[in-house]
Amino acid sequence: MKDIGVIGLGVMGRSLALNLADHEFKVVGYNRTKEVTEEVVKMNHPNFYPAYSLKDLISDLKKPRKIMIMVKAGEAVDKVLNDLGEYLEDGDIVMDGGNSFFKETQRREAEWKEKGIYYYGVGISGGEQGARFGPSLMPGGELGTYPQIKPILESISAKFEGEPCCSYIGPNGAGHYVKMVHNGIEYADMQLIVEAYLLLKKVGNFKNKQLSEIFNSWNQGKTKSYLIEITSKILSEKDDETGMDLIDLIKDAAKQKGTGKWTVLESINQDMNASLILTAYQARGISNDESRVILQKSLSKPLGRKVDAIVFAKEVHKAYLAGKIIAYTQGFSLYKDASDRYGWNLKLEEIASIFRSGCIIQSSLLEDIRKGYQDSPSSNNLLTHSIFIERLQETLQSLRVVTSLGILHGVPLPTLTGAITYAEQLRSDSLGANLIQAQRDFFGAHMFERKDKEGEFHHEWDS
Amino acid sequence: MKDIGVIGLGVMGRSLALNLADHEFKVVGYNRTKEVTEEVVKMNHPNFYPAYSLKDLISDLKKPRKIMIMVKAGEAVDKVLNDLGEYLEDGDIVMDGGNSFFKETQRREAEWKEKGIYYYGVGISGGEQGARFGPSLMPGGELGTYPQIKPILESISAKFEGEPCCSYIGPNGAGHYVKMVHNGIEYADMQLIVEAYLLLKKVGNFKNKQLSEIFNSWNQGKTKSYLIEITSKILSEKDDETGMDLIDLIKDAAKQKGTGKWTVLESINQDMNASLILTAYQARGISNDESRVILQKSLSKPLGRKVDAIVFAKEVHKAYLAGKIIAYTQGFSLYKDASDRYGWNLKLEEIASIFRSGCIIQSSLLEDIRKGYQDSPSSNNLLTHSIFIERLQETLQSLRVVTSLGILHGVPLPTLTGAITYAEQLRSDSLGANLIQAQRDFFGAHMFERKDKEGEFHHEWDS
Repeated sequence: MKDIGVIGLGVMGRSLALNLADHEFKVVGYNRTKEVTEEVVKMNHPNFYPAYSLKDLISDLKKPRKIMIMVKAGEAVDKVLNDLGEYLEDGDIVMDGGNSFFKETQRREAEWKEKGIYYYGVGISGGEQGARFGPSLMPGGELGTYPQIKPILESISAKFEGEPCCSYIGPNGAGHYVKMVHNGIEYADMQLIVEAYLLLKKVGNFKNKQLSEIFNSWNQGKTKSYLIEITSKILSEKDDETGMDLIDLIKDAAKQKGTGKWTVLESINQDMNASLILTAYQARGISNDESRVILQKSLSKPLGRKVDAIVFAKEVHKAYLAGKIIAYTQGFSLYKDASDRYGWNLKLEEIASIFRSGCIIQSSLLEDIRKGYQDSPSSNNLLTHSIFIERLQETLQSLRVVTSLGILHGVPLPTLTGAITYAEQLRSDSLGANLIQAQRDFFGAHMFERKDKEGEFHHEWDS
Repeated sequence: MKDIGVIGLGVMGRSLALNLADHEFKVVGYNRTKEVTEEVVKMNHPNFYPAYSLKDLISDLKKPRKIMIMVKAGEAVDKVLNDLGEYLEDGDIVMDGGNSFFKETQRREAEWKEKGIYYYGVGISGGEQGARFGPSLMPGGELGTYPQIKPILESISAKFEGEPCCSYIGPNGAGHYVKMVHNGIEYADMQLIVEAYLLLKKVGNFKNKQLSEIFNSWNQGKTKSYLIEITSKILSEKDDETGMDLIDLIKDAAKQKGTGKWTVLESINQDMNASLILTAYQARGISNDESRVILQKSLSKPLGRKVDAIVFAKEVHKAYLAGKIIAYTQGFSLYKDASDRYGWNLKLEEIASIFRSGCIIQSSLLEDIRKGYQDSPSSNNLLTHSIFIERLQETLQSLRVVTSLGILHGVPLPTLTGAITYAEQLRSDSLGANLIQAQRDFFGAHMFERKDKEGEFHHEWDS
């Protein structure tokens, strides 16, 4: 009898199955398309066993059964669950390792609980390599039965200084929620890097090789991260066919798969400001906008202003760090709010911990965030913590200078200008909201509050 | 027997009832709280008749009955409808003049249609004064019965050069959808004015009286608008008690009632970029953020740079116009998309027409938008029309200079930086989306497209 079943053997599913097999678990794997299963069989892993029907998979598992579903989020998950339904028994554990929308996970968890099945939504981050050799894992579901899957998940997860990058997140949809926002932060960090790249290229006039070196030099200290590391590698990569720099051959149009949009919608539904995730999400969308063709031709490019490239690169580095701090703290503020809103009791310090290795957003900044929440576990906005105030003090002026110059050079900077806007909105003693309140009272008698006394007031405006 | 019933006699309801009465319609009005009805009775309008129960109101109306509901959007509307239900008869017409969410209007319209009642969602804009003396009206519902209410609605609406600011918008929720986005545009324009005010005050060092004069000078030509007009008036208004400038006594914290949030959520659900509505919506939210208190104290203000105030004011004027063009065209692009999405067949030219007078966003720009759609009725983005390309060419450089300076002075400019970002995203031949695609392919094997050949490609990155 086998230890765990994996349903869905695509890129992520097979990587995870082999990772489990590496860790001495006997894995039985099933894929709807038989050929896909056979591809994994050909890899000859001694602990991997194929199944060619769900029934075979089920009957080959130790009870209570443990099954990881690795299929496309959405209807496919319900289809598999429905098909599994007739074979599952009281106490079996089903994990969904895909990027399911957390509210669907909540629904499924409640439905299966009634039938005596424990359903977990498990966020998995790290891409193909992570799934294969150690991802960050974010399991959410019943706390009581978690010990049954804990050793399995912890053993296959990434390790940070020996600690597993896997932690029980919370009940029902909490794991998938945390993964969703992780992806939102990923969108923001990727876009911040893009803007640094554009600034260095267009204002600093650096070539790809130099850009690769600059990003490599950033991959230490406060800006060390997986995304910076791969950016440096990408910028030095050649196209196999033409021998040209591959980056210059890739189309300027970004794709996305849904988690960014969900994060944006949830942030708005939560009345939270995740402006950097939002602008990063929009940046991908507008790269596919048909209006670009017309406006590229008809609007003229500004001249810009000469800069000292070396000095400028240092300023961009600081500006990037400021933006990154804001993006990550905005994302974590979503966790805090969701935790209160849904009663999940999320441990923000632990979430930061398990992001320190394995996942796509792994970076040295996460250690600061962990420390921040260790210090102030219930902070609503970690930007107000002394660690980050200090770091903003060191970097905000660079963010101002860089965005200001970038704008004069015609470089679109959605997240960097979003970052300086957000910082100034929180720093400035005047946002002009008094004028908005005056306008609302003028045209709609909506009343306003005053600085000098309590209460709500309407003024008879001279109209 | 009376011509029309009005249910709900608050600020908007009574204003509309008296407007109807002014136009020789015999109006019977009802309010849940009797005292409110009596207040209207005391105004002694010869055509206004009170009712003290829904039954009395109904029995006093000519058949088919015409009833306008002016109560708070949400449950109150369903409550009134439910209570009305037992008295209504086949062919009666019920109009909801509140800011109901358009999908609720769709639901209600379908429910009442089954019972033989014609239900209209009527967007009304113009605030108290508009409702009283001529608002913009956006009726949506059954086209076949529209002629029965058309003369009433047109007679009470605002007029622009003799034409009524009222037009049949489309079926079911279309009227309320158009009103919702109108309010979103209103948020954006208000915030753009706020940012102009902050720039002129903090960078240009103008005093309130001068600011009032500057905005007054803007109230002509391309930036003539109701919101600019009232802003000028607001900035010269004194507090009755203290004799101080009232604007300086109003708290820097903006309120909102929901239509802005709905517009933002819908724009994202529609996969549309309404970035200026979005940043304006967020700006109101963050003005109430508790983190402001801490960060105001702990982050230092930048020094900025000296400017020639007179020259700067002219640049701000142009920058405002650029921002306004983007805000309005983004809003109208939502209409175009919603029209296609819901099969509403919206007449964008007519929508621009009825906004030219009566409503809060009335402004000379609407005439350009009308002309643009007259020219290109099915344009997805009017920014690509030659009128607006030309105007952007005249103003974009000012927008760059002003946002760049504002950032150096520490002024938060969510919508103006949002505007330059959006313009550059559409103008620039490189958004760095190639780097995003490379990153996605690196960590997740998500494939990318190339500039030099068709198809989707995966690269074996050197990781």
